Amino acid sequence: AEVQKKITPWCLDIQGQDPDLQLVLQQRAARLGKQHGALLVVASLIDKPTNLGLCRTCEIFGASALVLDNLRHINDKHFQSLSVSSELWLPLLEVKPLELADFLQMKKSEGYCIVGAEQTSNSQSLQDYRFPEKTLLLLNEREGIPANLLQLLDVCVEIPQQGVIRSLNVHVSAALLIWEYT
Amino acid sequence: AEVQKKITPWCLDIQGQDPDLQLVLQQRAARLGKQHGALLVVASLIDKPTNLGLCRTCEIFGASALVLDNLRHINDKHFQSLSVSSELWLPLLEVKPLELADFLQMKKSEGYCIVGAEQTSNSQSLQDYRFPEKTLLLLNEREGIPANLLQLLDVCVEIPQQGVIRSLNVHVSAALLIWEYT
Repeated sequence: AEVQKKITPWCLDIQGQDPDLQLVLQQRAARLGKQHGALLVVASLIDKPTNLGLCRTCEIFGASALVLDNLRHINDKHFQSLSVSSELWLPLLEVKPLELADFLQMKKSEGYCIVGAEQTSNSQSLQDYRFPEKTLLLLNEREGIPANLLQLLDVCVEIPQQGVIRSLNVHVSAALLIWEYT
Repeated sequence: AEVQKKITPWCLDIQGQDPDLQLVLQQRAARLGKQHGALLVVASLIDKPTNLGLCRTCEIFGASALVLDNLRHINDKHFQSLSVSSELWLPLLEVKPLELADFLQMKKSEGYCIVGAEQTSNSQSLQDYRFPEKTLLLLNEREGIPANLLQLLDVCVEIPQQGVIRSLNVHVSAALLIWEYT
């Protein structure tokens, strides 16, 4: 309940009321003419502002909502220039890194499949993986997903790579996963 | 021939010799254990340095070469931090915007299919499009592909978008097209 309170749907009609995430997501889906939308993109572990251009990508591909570590990002000029007003159309939620474990567990109990974008020995290849409709996608920057969250994942998905360099930029990785989901 | 002279394969063994692009591409393909590689990514119309993080993405997905408007970019600290040394593994070629028409025509005569990433009324959807093996992918930033180049394209491919915001970041668009090619 503590976590749910911190979910602040941004720029939607229900501001000022106690927000109901389910309703917010339904409104978002309806606006896009979708039957339902259930892709939650969790970027709370991302701290490089440049990578939050992800907001634009999430909006364009019809993600239901983007979760950030701090909603203050949207007041940042750099964030605004990258998101080209997509933050006005996409529900943004705030979940701090320390609250992520509770948040993932809550979403799990609501039927979301918790997917980590991570290269592990058990990762499934993005080429073969089919996302369930209710997907929560947990992204991470360089250091990888912390162990306490890793154990909450239902599946890890990795992007097959051919080159010498081993790691894609997180915005690019996220875009490919969201593209394959939608 | 004038254009070909300006193609400078970077960081490969044949520096100092008159470069033979075909050989460079074969070496790149062999290094990646590929039978052949024939995806040329042309970023000469991209001028925002941030978007040249594309270099990393091209390397990772096994593009044959990346074409830039100016090879001086690789001396730029910002470029280097984004490309995380991928510029050492990926052939980089220099073709200035004014030389692009000649370059596209030359590649066309070599059997490349000239693909533009562009939203037009005749664009094919990325979801349905199958890239030919020899593909030259021409990218562009905000203003779109200039008319003199547009007429040289064999096909325009666009990324189907669901949201309210209309245009993806060029690095993200490019990554999706390269991912679908490979």
